[in-house]
Amino acid sequence: MAVNIFDTAYALEKNIRESEEFADLKIQYASLYADEAARKLFDDFRTVQMNLQEKQMTGQPISQEEVVQAQQMVSVIQQNNKITRLIEAEQKMSSVIAEINKIVMKPLEELYSQQQD
Amino acid sequence: MAVNIFDTAYALEKNIRESEEFADLKIQYASLYADEAARKLFDDFRTVQMNLQEKQMTGQPISQEEVVQAQQMVSVIQQNNKITRLIEAEQKMSSVIAEINKIVMKPLEELYSQQQD
Repeated sequence: MAVNIFDTAYALEKNIRESEEFADLKIQYASLYADEAARKLFDDFRTVQMNLQEKQMTGQPISQEEVVQAQQMVSVIQQNNKITRLIEAEQKMSSVIAEINKIVMKPLEELYSQQQD
Repeated sequence: MAVNIFDTAYALEKNIRESEEFADLKIQYASLYADEAARKLFDDFRTVQMNLQEKQMTGQPISQEEVVQAQQMVSVIQQNNKITRLIEAEQKMSSVIAEINKIVMKPLEELYSQQQD
């Protein structure tokens, strides 16, 4: 059975946990969450962002008002260093995860692309 | 930088490629696709399935007719050994992938669950 697979998956988990990107993400989260006002701003931003994403994915209309509200929020957030540093750390971690997924999913991707010929 | 991470990801890719589950999936695909009638049946089933999933995800209504059509297709497909073996092989491979994802995403999951306190 696939014992090696899971051993390697645990090794990968350890690598992620010990990576610079993960360490930085933890630091940026701790820094943001120690600042009550910045945390609230960030939580509100995430709520607005998720609502818009859900509407987009389920094909619900997004009003002009909602677009303006989101844009205003982005410009407020861009002036908060703690938030911008966290978003940057999240993006770097996401890139690593996306790259891992691309590598790991290659065998299946190849198999499925062959079937479509 | 995250050199070790990608080395480990490539090792995991190799493990997947060499796994029993992947080998079986390849065999079942080859077996199905060598049988023109079974292949057509399977492709039609996938098309119906994907249409229904897309409708579900985007909140579009699904007619009674479509439900009946899908059910009929499932019962036809369940009588085709090549298709049932392929679906079984796909499910086993999916379980392995899901388990890998669960392991690998644990550091991030822990980090995010802490933030929600």
